[in-house]
Amino acid sequence: MNRLILLAGGTVMALAVFRGPIHAEEGMWTFDNPPTRLIQDKYNFAITQQWLDHVRLSSVRLNDGGSGSFVSPTGLLLTNHHVALGQLQKNSTPEHDYVKSGFYARTSAEEIKSPDLEVNVLVSMENVTARVQDALKGARNPEQEFAKRKDVITAIERESLEKTGFRSDVVTLYQGGEYWLYRYKKYTDVRIVFAPEQQIAFFGGDPDNFTYPRYDLDFALFRVYENGQPIQSQNYLKWNPKGAAAGELVFVSGHPGSTQRLDTLAQLEAERDLYEPATLKILHSRIDTLKKYSATGPEAARRAMTQIFGLENSLKAYDGREKGLQDKRVMDAKRADETKFKARVAANPQWKAAYGSAWDQIAASEKKAQTRFKEQYFHGLNSSLASLAQQIVQYVAEIKKPDGERLAGYHESQLESLRLALFSPAPIYPDMEIARIMGALELDLAEAGPNDPWVKMVLNGKSPHEVATELVNGTKLTDPEVRKKLIEGGESAVAASNDSMIVLARKLDPTRRELTKWLEDNVQSVEQRAGEQLGKARFAAFGKSTYPDATFTLRLSYGQVKGYPMNGTIAPPMTTMYGLYDRSASFGDTGPFELPQRYVDGRTKLDLSTPFNFVTTNDIIGGNSGSPVVNKNGEIVGLIFDGNIESLVGDFVYEGETNRAVAVHTAAITEALRKIYGADALANELLR
Amino acid sequence: MNRLILLAGGTVMALAVFRGPIHAEEGMWTFDNPPTRLIQDKYNFAITQQWLDHVRLSSVRLNDGGSGSFVSPTGLLLTNHHVALGQLQKNSTPEHDYVKSGFYARTSAEEIKSPDLEVNVLVSMENVTARVQDALKGARNPEQEFAKRKDVITAIERESLEKTGFRSDVVTLYQGGEYWLYRYKKYTDVRIVFAPEQQIAFFGGDPDNFTYPRYDLDFALFRVYENGQPIQSQNYLKWNPKGAAAGELVFVSGHPGSTQRLDTLAQLEAERDLYEPATLKILHSRIDTLKKYSATGPEAARRAMTQIFGLENSLKAYDGREKGLQDKRVMDAKRADETKFKARVAANPQWKAAYGSAWDQIAASEKKAQTRFKEQYFHGLNSSLASLAQQIVQYVAEIKKPDGERLAGYHESQLESLRLALFSPAPIYPDMEIARIMGALELDLAEAGPNDPWVKMVLNGKSPHEVATELVNGTKLTDPEVRKKLIEGGESAVAASNDSMIVLARKLDPTRRELTKWLEDNVQSVEQRAGEQLGKARFAAFGKSTYPDATFTLRLSYGQVKGYPMNGTIAPPMTTMYGLYDRSASFGDTGPFELPQRYVDGRTKLDLSTPFNFVTTNDIIGGNSGSPVVNKNGEIVGLIFDGNIESLVGDFVYEGETNRAVAVHTAAITEALRKIYGADALANELLR
Repeated sequence: MNRLILLAGGTVMALAVFRGPIHAEEGMWTFDNPPTRLIQDKYNFAITQQWLDHVRLSSVRLNDGGSGSFVSPTGLLLTNHHVALGQLQKNSTPEHDYVKSGFYARTSAEEIKSPDLEVNVLVSMENVTARVQDALKGARNPEQEFAKRKDVITAIERESLEKTGFRSDVVTLYQGGEYWLYRYKKYTDVRIVFAPEQQIAFFGGDPDNFTYPRYDLDFALFRVYENGQPIQSQNYLKWNPKGAAAGELVFVSGHPGSTQRLDTLAQLEAERDLYEPATLKILHSRIDTLKKYSATGPEAARRAMTQIFGLENSLKAYDGREKGLQDKRVMDAKRADETKFKARVAANPQWKAAYGSAWDQIAASEKKAQTRFKEQYFHGLNSSLASLAQQIVQYVAEIKKPDGERLAGYHESQLESLRLALFSPAPIYPDMEIARIMGALELDLAEAGPNDPWVKMVLNGKSPHEVATELVNGTKLTDPEVRKKLIEGGESAVAASNDSMIVLARKLDPTRRELTKWLEDNVQSVEQRAGEQLGKARFAAFGKSTYPDATFTLRLSYGQVKGYPMNGTIAPPMTTMYGLYDRSASFGDTGPFELPQRYVDGRTKLDLSTPFNFVTTNDIIGGNSGSPVVNKNGEIVGLIFDGNIESLVGDFVYEGETNRAVAVHTAAITEALRKIYGADALANELLR
Repeated sequence: MNRLILLAGGTVMALAVFRGPIHAEEGMWTFDNPPTRLIQDKYNFAITQQWLDHVRLSSVRLNDGGSGSFVSPTGLLLTNHHVALGQLQKNSTPEHDYVKSGFYARTSAEEIKSPDLEVNVLVSMENVTARVQDALKGARNPEQEFAKRKDVITAIERESLEKTGFRSDVVTLYQGGEYWLYRYKKYTDVRIVFAPEQQIAFFGGDPDNFTYPRYDLDFALFRVYENGQPIQSQNYLKWNPKGAAAGELVFVSGHPGSTQRLDTLAQLEAERDLYEPATLKILHSRIDTLKKYSATGPEAARRAMTQIFGLENSLKAYDGREKGLQDKRVMDAKRADETKFKARVAANPQWKAAYGSAWDQIAASEKKAQTRFKEQYFHGLNSSLASLAQQIVQYVAEIKKPDGERLAGYHESQLESLRLALFSPAPIYPDMEIARIMGALELDLAEAGPNDPWVKMVLNGKSPHEVATELVNGTKLTDPEVRKKLIEGGESAVAASNDSMIVLARKLDPTRRELTKWLEDNVQSVEQRAGEQLGKARFAAFGKSTYPDATFTLRLSYGQVKGYPMNGTIAPPMTTMYGLYDRSASFGDTGPFELPQRYVDGRTKLDLSTPFNFVTTNDIIGGNSGSPVVNKNGEIVGLIFDGNIESLVGDFVYEGETNRAVAVHTAAITEALRKIYGADALANELLR
């Protein structure tokens, strides 16, 4: 469910407004505004500030796109196998395939460092709304406002970084109704301690992905180091080996990536009619490309596996979104919401004057954005090397500008994280790059057409295959040292380079900048301003009784362990290890339902009635992968790894009757560590 | 899935026409016209006449509403537990509850006779179309045709019975496109040999009913006797203990009750808008009544259980039908079919003249039928005693008429079966009768209204509760001897009786007869004639390349063991015993998911990878319950007991991608008999 990792930039113009009354158990709440009253009323449980701080400081965000938590005083970090997958893959070779075989460091010496994993802990939150909104005063149009907003935000982040040394991000919540400065403690020495075989972490494969009942041991353990020593985590979630019980109140603390629950109808319709189909087209094309590449041999299959996994995951998620957008009930509900909100605003002359035109402004900018839709979707190279080249070309230029004027991603406060990614020693496979670029160019050619200026510029009269081959064969960017030298050499070194990828990136750079600028001036600036109006209108009309759309920042959701009506019957609150063996045998132990040999051999050692996966009513979304499921005592009782198929509409609406988060039960992890993996030492450490 | 047992008379005017090209694996084929070519083409298997005869003569129909098969040379008859349920219930007492505890006769002396079970084997089929159609010549209007048709059919049946001694039924196929005389060998000494606990036969209860994956051991074994000795079945299906394999070609031979696939749009719309909602209303009311009654104590709960089971089964089935009828895709497909068929007929002047008005005739008679809709649906007493009284009153009158003029059900050839039911020693519970009558009258009162003549006549100024109590307290019909005496005493005895139920039945009899006659004259006669026209039109336009709608007569379907797309993932071709334990533990071993103690105790003895239930693409419907699943060698490899939720639209259309028959695997039966029930002797007999 890490769809957020992929295609994150898909919808440049996604923008959220927010609405009135919410449903029970709905919501991805910020830690400054938890639904204390709702929880007290329904579950008779009083959340304390101490409890909140404990959970927040035990929660982590991984820059690979997921969430996690500290689960021992000695730096053990629990997340999903599929969040750790990229790092496992980057450390694997044909001889040591940790994705396939799993990994267990029996001693700290055997722990493997992740090449480019960064982990963030949210250590403080500060409301900076007043400062940001004050800074906008005097702007005469949306473009000026946009520039001023960017400027003040960059300044706040830089100042904070300088003052505290913490990673500092200003987060836009309630669409500019509020701005918050989030400070993160950052860790970059993160070592792999344990991962099971992918075959059990992702048992059931793509068919079972986003479904339930489910039987996945989708967990991995890292250990976080600082100054060469495991950190002494003061805040960690105590391991509860009994795990979650049916009906129990549970919390999820994690980093939901993005939702569009508060989009206007105009935005949702554009999403439905234009962007969603384009995204699906791209996903299908990318998957086709990699499957063809995989078929060339077992090592190719190993190399492509992680990406195919992610893309199929995204495809299924987008299919679900698509169904939601196509669902008349969903759109009717959205229309009714908007009509009601508009009427409320129109009824108050002051509100009407201040906010009444926001919907039309957004609709107009959506129309405008669509005129350059193909450039946003079908000018892609789908290449790690091309991305690195683009970043290098931009880096050396941006770095020379005042912080507030730089492109997003190149601000002072972001540079350290960016360099971690730029200089990562993770392998890049030239043959796979060629396949990916060729596939992407074929799609661009088909969709944007041979007369599209960008297509002409890139192809330059040659075939996609020729261009891809020349680009990859003519670059040395696979070597992180080469990338480092270019960055160190600055603009002159980059300008002088005849590396094929750098040459192309230089050529494309003006086009990219022009599009970015055009979108800022014509779409983002307008929608940010209109969004702020709607945000304020909501506060005025409904008060601050709700939560903002997801922004890959820390959120708390509450709910209970609970089955749901499914396919004519009831899905159970949890599954057991019996079910793993049933599903495998049901399909003749083949394909994605094949059991790892360890599980065939170890069956009689297991207590098969051990709970395996379970479902809760907690409101989550992509990015929550790896989030801890926490009980009232602040202990960990489960590990979020997926949502059910009914939850895929969750980008737009929370449907409490069937929307379920899917989690790994801590009892299953404990049982497997001891009886399947002989990892008693690790189990003991968790239980210490 | 024995919904056919209940509410069988719900749609008096249901009438089938038939259409053109059919889908792969669709079809409930008559044994005279099997889809030999389709099977040969897809599966490279040639059906022989010998194979067909073997399967047909091994198949049985049970008058309790299901199907079955002979599975040993010594008269063992396999069917579903839920088909045997009525007989188990009738032999149970508070002290010996065979429904709850199961039953196993270790010796033939311990076998228990079923009080009123009749079993039929189709021994011959004769095409009598020419004789029936000749007899209609000279009729000047639909009513005359109706009378002549009834007359000739009755004569054929009576002559056959006299000549052969076999139960003889004329079956209308292809809506009068063909008439066939089916002769049945009849058995009435049918003894219970084995039944598991209902808790395992119906594991998962109402929630899992009509769903899959599934874990039900829904089987029972009878032994058929003749002249006090077990019959020597020459035709029986050899027990294959390995059972069905994924992908295997399999056949189902059984008695699908009723389908409406060839109904005209006018009929389907009436079904959707009027009859279906009324049926659902009745089912909800009946279930409410019995649940309230059940709540009065454990013995009441035991008494009502079988009926609640059946009603909930029907409710779920009708819910599925309703969804099908409400599904725009289904109705659009039906509309497209009809438009095409009409155009084909209109294009040929001769056909147009002969058949072109049939659709309008049916639409007109549907309109007419609706004017007396409430009388058909809301003049019900829901009482076993009232039904017996009605039958007694009608019996003594009808028996004096010439055979061809009698009401349906009282023809000479039907009397023996009727008497078996009339004189059944099965218990009737007065307190439950009172509850049922009261509930039914309350519904009638609410729906037909207090001024409805029938309602006035029955209530006679009293409350439903008063009437129900008086009726039940004033009757002796619970005693089969009393019923026998009334029948033996004939019209004068019945006329002289002051038994409350008989008195009421006499009072209602003229009203019932008037409605029956009115429906015959205004609806059935018109729709039979128009149906025949459409039947002939189909033959003319498309040839005899298809199958007739189901009529509770023997049919053959073919298909393969195959999973299907479900809820975002794939349902497996089969489940295993592991899954039984998973589903139970998943729900904390409670409610309908509680395991019988034998299964808790016997778990370690079982090979949990034993296949349990499986799904096939065979086209079946209610009435197929208990049908054998037969392999190419004519061996039994499974036992049909349900359809999945996606199959419920099957009354109207077969959707091959998701429509699945659900069966018990013979390996599961063998494993359970030996390891759970210590019934090695019985298992050995099956395997002999």
